[in-house]
Amino acid sequence: MAEGILLIISGPSGVGKGTVCRRLLEIRKELEVSVSSTTRPPRPGEIEGREYIFTDRDSFEAMINKGAFLEWAVVHGYYYGTRRMVVEEALSHGEDLILEIDVQGAAQVRMKMPEAVSVFLAPPSIKILEKRIDGRGTEDAQRIKDRLVTARREMKVYHRYDYVVVNNTVEKAASLINSIIDVEKCKVSRGARPPDTGGDS
Amino acid sequence: MAEGILLIISGPSGVGKGTVCRRLLEIRKELEVSVSSTTRPPRPGEIEGREYIFTDRDSFEAMINKGAFLEWAVVHGYYYGTRRMVVEEALSHGEDLILEIDVQGAAQVRMKMPEAVSVFLAPPSIKILEKRIDGRGTEDAQRIKDRLVTARREMKVYHRYDYVVVNNTVEKAASLINSIIDVEKCKVSRGARPPDTGGDS
Repeated sequence: MAEGILLIISGPSGVGKGTVCRRLLEIRKELEVSVSSTTRPPRPGEIEGREYIFTDRDSFEAMINKGAFLEWAVVHGYYYGTRRMVVEEALSHGEDLILEIDVQGAAQVRMKMPEAVSVFLAPPSIKILEKRIDGRGTEDAQRIKDRLVTARREMKVYHRYDYVVVNNTVEKAASLINSIIDVEKCKVSRGARPPDTGGDS
Repeated sequence: MAEGILLIISGPSGVGKGTVCRRLLEIRKELEVSVSSTTRPPRPGEIEGREYIFTDRDSFEAMINKGAFLEWAVVHGYYYGTRRMVVEEALSHGEDLILEIDVQGAAQVRMKMPEAVSVFLAPPSIKILEKRIDGRGTEDAQRIKDRLVTARREMKVYHRYDYVVVNNTVEKAASLINSIIDVEKCKVSRGARPPDTGGDS
């Protein structure tokens, strides 16, 4: 069986990663989402192993020290991270995984798994990105300013990715990322070969 | 303007390169076919610069000696070849070009233009390829035998290509090659970038 593909979907804050990923998962049913580990307690309705792998703080920190995470971060006082073993097991079973992640996390994963395929989701323009961030209307002025500064900084790292996909429409962006997976599977450098020339495909 | 892509479409004799390319050109209207040069005299209805660039033997041989061809071959006593200048001019105008070519020609072009994207069109199985070659019914037994030997030898070079696309159906193969072009255009290594981060795209 061919190894699955780990697809990193990243990009600046506000670009619409979540929406594009949800659409992609509808288009490509067999795609799986990488499940993160967290020390945050489960919320009602959340199921262990589906939303998150729930982990206590000591275990999480021990795993950090053992290098068990492809990436991890602290958000609002809780740890969140992606365990290398969880990802590698899925890939070895031929599953394709997407990892929707901010640019800092993406940098960690790319370093530790250079065979991952990385997509930088870009806005049609910086102006449109700024409008999206500003227009949510749920945050105070200082927080919006911070997010704008962050987003502009995050735009500068696109060149570290394999692909740039512009989020002109959710449908087009999701469909193009779907094509990226199809096309990566045809790459000879990834082991693609004619059907009956040996091998186990 | 972004440079166009040179797409080499090759594969064993009998795999259906011509049919897939014709369908691809219907799907992707803006795609152009690289026009070959030949010393064969024009047939009725053939137009200079459309079917071929018609060239006399002395000029052709002089161009061979100057290294003007990305690839060339002799078929039934006539020269056929792809001029580097013709290809480079089209690419520099942002045109995407396909070059449907046998595996020997493809090897020459890949060497001279490593930035070309190469697709090995593979049959669903060797048996199916053999049936296609055998089943045309227009050739004598010895000629069919020769073609089978050639096809089996040509199957072995798939690993020198960027992509393997299986010709299960013409529609699927053409559509996958169309995706390859879309996806190649998103590659950061090919100069893809977010729309307004400088550059001329």
